Amino acid sequence: MSGWALHPQLRDDSHPVAMLALCEVRLMDDANYPWLILVPRIIDAVELTDLPGTEQAQLLTEIGTASRALQAQFRPHKLNIAMLGNMVRQLHVHVIARFLDDPAWPMPVWGRAAAVPYSAAAATTRCSDLLARLLP
Amino acid sequence: MSGWALHPQLRDDSHPVAMLALCEVRLMDDANYPWLILVPRIIDAVELTDLPGTEQAQLLTEIGTASRALQAQFRPHKLNIAMLGNMVRQLHVHVIARFLDDPAWPMPVWGRAAAVPYSAAAATTRCSDLLARLLP
Repeated sequence: MSGWALHPQLRDDSHPVAMLALCEVRLMDDANYPWLILVPRIIDAVELTDLPGTEQAQLLTEIGTASRALQAQFRPHKLNIAMLGNMVRQLHVHVIARFLDDPAWPMPVWGRAAAVPYSAAAATTRCSDLLARLLP
Repeated sequence: MSGWALHPQLRDDSHPVAMLALCEVRLMDDANYPWLILVPRIIDAVELTDLPGTEQAQLLTEIGTASRALQAQFRPHKLNIAMLGNMVRQLHVHVIARFLDDPAWPMPVWGRAAAVPYSAAAATTRCSDLLARLLP
């Protein structure tokens, strides 16, 4: 995986949470929703089908890990899982905890409410809490 | 899988394309985008993590099949793959071919352009073409 680098837009929009076997897990800097992104450390991957089968299976495992971490910590009404890549082509998976009273419900989150950045202290706490659930 | 039934909202919004091993594949009735949904025939599944591991792996395989079918037929700029379920909780996966000149680009498709229903002939042709790629 030498030579892989996180896309600067993804880096700037999020906080580091954990390194899993395949993915870098980051917390999106938007306190409107508990929102993780998983970024496989595979050079030039854009579509899911760009990943070899073993990495696809590992990605599925890590989506499950992220899903269970958000479910355990936040008890969401629903999870939203998405691979879009319209803005940033580097393959990344959104795993978002959704609630009946969140600012975009029932629509998807993109292009709805303006992002609400975390305070430094809140980001640190949230990332630390999620890390403990991702890598218990 | 006795007792499973497609949610009526999904049924009304789409045309039948194919039965894969796990999923019913349907074409969303919106000619703005080549847009498939995959619905696992598993009773009461809502979240990806509700599926046993073997069915999760099969769903991944079928998402790949649907992705390659759309890529081969439409040569999209990007695929969007999403499990949302905010409106209809029955687990379903959107696999959507996106283009730089489609009516929602670069945003996700939900809540943007009004759906443009296919004519009966166009729906039949499109479903038939996609079936040939899904079950060659």
